[in-house]
Parts: sequence; C-alpha cells; structure tokens
Amino acid sequence: MAIITLTTDFGEKDHFAGAIKGAIYSELSDIRIVDVSHSVSPFNISEAAYIILNAYSSFPKGTIHIIGIDSELSPENKHIALKLDDHYFICANNGIMSMICTEIAPEKIVEINIHDKIETSFPVLDVFVKVACHIARGGTLEIIGKVINTIKPIKNLIPFVNDEKNQIIGSVIYIDNYGNVVTNIKQKFFEEVQKTRAYEISARNHKFKRIYSKYSDIVNFEIEEFKRNDEGKGLVVFNSSGYLEIAVYKSNCTTVGSASTLMGLKTMDTVTVNFQPTLSPSQREGNLR
Amino acid sequence: MAIITLTTDFGEKDHFAGAIKGAIYSELSDIRIVDVSHSVSPFNISEAAYIILNAYSSFPKGTIHIIGIDSELSPENKHIALKLDDHYFICANNGIMSMICTEIAPEKIVEINIHDKIETSFPVLDVFVKVACHIARGGTLEIIGKVINTIKPIKNLIPFVNDEKNQIIGSVIYIDNYGNVVTNIKQKFFEEVQKTRAYEISARNHKFKRIYSKYSDIVNFEIEEFKRNDEGKGLVVFNSSGYLEIAVYKSNCTTVGSASTLMGLKTMDTVTVNFQPTLSPSQREGNLR
Amino acid sequence: MAIITLTTDFGEKDHFAGAIKGAIYSELSDIRIVDVSHSVSPFNISEAAYIILNAYSSFPKGTIHIIGIDSELSPENKHIALKLDDHYFICANNGIMSMICTEIAPEKIVEINIHDKIETSFPVLDVFVKVACHIARGGTLEIIGKVINTIKPIKNLIPFVNDEKNQIIGSVIYIDNYGNVVTNIKQKFFEEVQKTRAYEISARNHKFKRIYSKYSDIVNFEIEEFKRNDEGKGLVVFNSSGYLEIAVYKSNCTTVGSASTLMGLKTMDTVTVNFQPTLSPSQREGNLR
Repeated sequence: MAIITLTTDFGEKDHFAGAIKGAIYSELSDIRIVDVSHSVSPFNISEAAYIILNAYSSFPKGTIHIIGIDSELSPENKHIALKLDDHYFICANNGIMSMICTEIAPEKIVEINIHDKIETSFPVLDVFVKVACHIARGGTLEIIGKVINTIKPIKNLIPFVNDEKNQIIGSVIYIDNYGNVVTNIKQKFFEEVQKTRAYEISARNHKFKRIYSKYSDIVNFEIEEFKRNDEGKGLVVFNSSGYLEIAVYKSNCTTVGSASTLMGLKTMDTVTVNFQPTLSPSQREGNLR
Repeated sequence: MAIITLTTDFGEKDHFAGAIKGAIYSELSDIRIVDVSHSVSPFNISEAAYIILNAYSSFPKGTIHIIGIDSELSPENKHIALKLDDHYFICANNGIMSMICTEIAPEKIVEINIHDKIETSFPVLDVFVKVACHIARGGTLEIIGKVINTIKPIKNLIPFVNDEKNQIIGSVIYIDNYGNVVTNIKQKFFEEVQKTRAYEISARNHKFKRIYSKYSDIVNFEIEEFKRNDEGKGLVVFNSSGYLEIAVYKSNCTTVGSASTLMGLKTMDTVTVNFQPTLSPSQREGNLR
Repeated sequence: MAIITLTTDFGEKDHFAGAIKGAIYSELSDIRIVDVSHSVSPFNISEAAYIILNAYSSFPKGTIHIIGIDSELSPENKHIALKLDDHYFICANNGIMSMICTEIAPEKIVEINIHDKIETSFPVLDVFVKVACHIARGGTLEIIGKVINTIKPIKNLIPFVNDEKNQIIGSVIYIDNYGNVVTNIKQKFFEEVQKTRAYEISARNHKFKRIYSKYSDIVNFEIEEFKRNDEGKGLVVFNSSGYLEIAVYKSNCTTVGSASTLMGLKTMDTVTVNFQPTLSPSQREGNLR
C-alpha cells in the first residue's frame, strides 16, 4: 500500500487537514496517509524544511510527501514535484526543498503545470492531492509538470567558516518541543573544521566547552539521586538528526524552563564556535568526543 | 473499507480520542478512522459546525462522522444520527448539525434510543461508537433510533439583511489557524444582495472596499521583492470554503500578527457590508470581482 | 492486522512522531498505527501513566503500546517490555507502568537487552520500534530481554487513609483538556472507606458535599434555560475513568474558566475527604450516590 505523508502549517484545529485526507481517500481507497506535522509555524519555510528532512528517510522508499506551507500559486511561487532518494515530494517552490537538496541531489524536478484544468483557492487540496494520487497510481512526474533543473534556495542554510578556519558562525534553525535549540551546524561539518582542536561554543553570553553524546551524560550517576542537581542544566549535544543542539536536561518550557526560555535563544540567533590551536588540558583528558 | 471520522473537543493530550479509536478497532477490524479535529474549543458548537461542514464533503459518500462536542445526555441534549448528502453524522442535538442542514436537507434524522442498554459517563465512547459501527456494518438508522423531523437550531447562523437591502450585518463565526477572521457571509449570499453595487465592508474601525480572489493578489509582483511591504497587510477574500474572510497576508498570530490579533476581531463580532447605489470609480476599473 | 499505539511527549510539531511511524511502516507494511497522545507534558511520567492506563483497555487484546517519555537509556533508566492484560507495553523503567501494574499484575516483564546491536540517540525510533515490530510478528519477550520481577514505582499513586479511617488525603494527578482536576481517589477506594457516611471534600478553600453522577446533574432542568446560571459552577463527579474529579460545568480554560483556573488547582495539590459518623440530613435525602 502506498504512503502519502502530510506536513503542513494548517494547525490542529481547522478543517484543512481533515479535508485533505478525505480528498485522498476519495481518489484512492487503498492508500495510507500519515501525519508528519500540521503544527509548523504559519509560513515558516525553515521549520518545514527541518521537519521533513528529518522525518522523510524513516519512511519506505516510494513514499509521497505532501508539504503544504505557503502554497498559494503566484508569479513567484510555483508548485513543484521532486523525486529524490527514491521518495517523492510535492510542495511550493519556496525554499522548503533546498535543505534536503543540499544533502542529496534530486533525481528529477518538475514544475507542476496542471493548473489550467483546476480552479482553486486551496491548492494543497486541489493540486497537491491530485499530483500525489497520480504518483501513487504509478504515474510519472513528466505527465503533471515540465522538467526544471534548479529550485529556489533558502537563506542561512549553511554555517559560515572564516578564512583562518578557526571559527564557525552558525545560526539557530529550529526550537523543538523541549525548547532545545537546534543550530545549522552538522556534526560532520563541525568535525571537518575542528580536526582535533579544542573549541568553545558561544550562544549569547553562554559558553560551552564540551559536546556530550547524550543528554543524560551530564548526570553524575555516582552521586545519590536525591543529592543531584542535574535537571535544568545547560549542555550541548549533537542531536539524533546530527545537528549541534543547545539543550537543557529534562527541560520543559512551561515548568523548569528550557534552553530556549532559560538562555533567551530563538530562531535566527547566532551560535559561534571558536577553535583553539590545541586541545585544552581539561578537554584533553575529559569526557568528550 | 468504511471510514469513520472524528471531530471533538477532546484536545490533543487526553486519552479520550485514543480510547475512541481503540473501541472502534475492537468492534471492527476492517475500518479506517480519520481525525478531522480534536482541537475544537471546549463546548464550542459553532466552531464544530464550521469545521465539520467544511471537511465532510471531501470524504467519500457513505463516510460516518462522529462529532463529540457537548455530548452528555440530558433532558435537553439528546443524541441523534443523520443521513445527509449520503454521509452519516452522529452527535448531540445541540445545534452542531443546523449549519449543514440549512445548506442541504437531511434525508433522515433519528433520535438515538439505545441508551437503556448502556450505562455510560462517556457517551462518545459508549454510544456514538456503537452507532457508528452499526452503520459501518450496513445497519439502518431506524434500528438505533426513532425518526424525528427537526433538529435544534444554532443562533446567528444567517447574516441579517435590512429592508432596504443595502446592508448585510454578519458576524464572525470562526478564527482559523492563521488568525484569519471568517464571517457567516457566504459568497453566493453576498452576490445576491450586492447585484452590481459598490460596497464597503466594516469590522470595528477597519474598512475594505475590495474583495480579492486570493491572498497574494494584494502583492504587486512588478515591484522587486526586497522593496515590497506586503506581509502583514489586511485584506478581504472569499475563503476556500466560500465565506467572506478578513485576512492578513502571510499572517502568524505569534510573530507578525494576524487579522484577529492586529484588528482585535474575535468570534461573535459584527462585520457589516454597506452597498451603494452604483459602483465607485475606483471599483469600476479595479482589480475586483 | 496488529495495532501499535503511540503515547509520547514529542509534541505535535516536531518530526519525531512522523519518523517513528515511518520506521514502523518500513519494517511492517501490514500494521495499524494509532496515536494515543503526543502532547504529554515533557518528561511527565504521571501524566503519561494516567493517559495510557485509561486508553489501553479500549484497544483489542494483543495491541502493542509504545510509550516514549523520558526514554534515554542510562544506568538508572533501563528499557522494559511488559505483557499485561493481554496487551504489550514498551517503555522506559521510570515509573510509567506502575500505575497500571497496581491495578493488574503483569504477566511478564523483561528488561530489553538488544542495545549492544544498536547505536542510538533516539531510542524510541531505534529500540522501541524494533521491539514493537518483533512482538507484532509474533516474537516472544524473552528474545529481546531478560525477565525481571519488579519495576520502578511512581510516587503518590495511592491516596493516604488515616488510622481512624475518617479521612482520605489524595492528590491531583491530572488536569484534563477541560481544566477538570483529576485526583488519585478512585470510586471503589472511596466507597470502601466511606461505607455509608456523609463526607466533605476539600480542595484549597473549596468544599463539596455531593458527588454527582454526571456533569449536567448540576443543572435544574425545571428552570427555563435563559434563567439558569449553571455554566461555570463547580462540582465533583467520578469521571468516566472512575476517578474523583473536581470539575466545572461546560468549562473552557480560555473563556469561562475551569476547575483548574477558577479554583487555582494544579497537579500535586492535595484533595482531602473527611467522613462524618453519620449521614447529614441533606445528604440523607439528597440527590447523591
């Protein structure tokens, strides 16, 4: 059974997501629909890009991903469908796909051109669903669009490295449900610049000299549980998607606080890594990567 | 495979929606359950009516819609099941269905009378699921209820038109995820009153003299992107469900603001349309319907 | 078709829940995935315990429940899988299961020991999904873990009864979507202590001398609807899960208020029941259990 996933900014309340699902089941009775997220912040391309990049590859090859963010057709906002990594993506050409496309080259991109047959003020329902069902039935991209070679890029995707190669200037691209602050600095990128040097990570006035392997590595399990004071402590990890993340152990935005709320960090903020010529003594012997 | 949809005010957190799904799958293994919304504001009949009206018709004929809002049985709040437009609806007789029923006459309405066999403090789970599964198995409405002819109406559903037919007084019935403000003035109704006259739409101290075809029609694409200042501008459209809507281009309630937050509009507020004898000069030549 | 349910604190926005579903469908094409809740408060064991306890038993026997709360593996937080009441549960050994296990003895508990084959910073995806799919394929618990006999308890689960047996001191364990305040005092427990005595329930400075059968029992339907003033009134019921609950009729946290907001009650607060030697006159004749 083919799978169609949905990633939108429709929210949890409105009828939009329900209507989309109904329309898909009306076209195809033997299909599986999976919600990835309907809670992308309205019109937030970067958030949607981060979410779909980190969700898509868990799905089976051949899965069709509808991304309904900022999808009103306009002279500057065309609709596209892509084949990439044996997955299909249907969305507006507004930058959403550029995050995935910098990692994996798309096999094929088409600009959807079936609009002359469709009058719509709800393109995800009237256009994207049609394209998704066409693909699910085994149809090719060329039938619903004309092949193009490039897509619209997204800004601030790649962190900046200075000429001396001793500084990475990254930025916050996502705040997750735990208030953890995700930067655009990927582990592989970090390690290529780092080589074996010591480093200091700065975000606002907060400094970190270690990157932990997992959140609970900040806990000293040799101290009795009742004497510890670990919850609420700031730390840096590479998260499960491979991004450098400033986190707080067992954070909760509305109770104990989170990296975002406690450190005042938000999307687009700068996070800097400074590398030193050699390892610092504490880092040389420490519990670090 | 039959489809049962769920529209409730259970929220995203509690166990209620999960328990409902479990109960349906326990009765019928070969069924599809689709969430329309669980984030209707608690006990908000009008919101639920708007959501189900605009979601249901995308689903295949024969779909069964459970609406779990204000469903505790009481002397004034009976349970009903309807067949309408070849869809089935199960809900309390509290006004939820009157919005759909003013548009399409129900084929059959029954007041559910299986309660003597069921003791329950969770009627959506114990009564609505039973009725839905009965219908999904091909059972008739008469077996689970007695036929009735009318249902409880909802207030303020239809906008008021004055005797001179030069004014529509509508009201806000829904605020969507983008903070867009949906009125009860439908396009067909508007155009029947308007004929070819010029109009001015007023909401609080905000006035609009145009209705756009889509949100991005407010953008002047001839100006370079960086010189524009379109985001955050108020406009009026007929939304994808056909309702007159006061919107803000690329709105976001928590960042740039929205029609609701920027103009201080909320559910039940009045929106007035005044018609003039003739078209105004700007409207005569303009980019308007 | 086997069913896997998901109860997590991943929230509605992030990619985590979508990735989990993709991973399950990648392993098993013929499986049904049901979201119970992704909106458990971050790291809130008690909330998760309450939700899964009250959702699981609606599902068919054999259902597999993944609970992804506080699941990072550490010396003090092992992963377990249980068979109980013919359902399967996969979670961290952090207290989540102790609420269910005080009601129903588990048939089998294993500590999952497949981690040496898996490197992960996302154990719900990499470990729990593997275990769930193993069980869905008919695999036994012994193959993925070693049998253990006890699990980690949760605090404040059972209300306290004084030696004189004339007082129950309970606590608030959950606030639901309507702002209703759920205590850890179950109906059966209450009635065993009560016998036939009169009682007074106290929460902060609020006192209640009746427990209603359902929310609308507070309404006097003999008074005309427009003259009533029932909405917003506080009352006590045993909720649909059998817990003593302080509620407000037709409550809404963001409009008319709720038991939680109007009475200032929150999780962990104390709720006391004092029993008197005999029934009070009003209770003897009253509309009470």
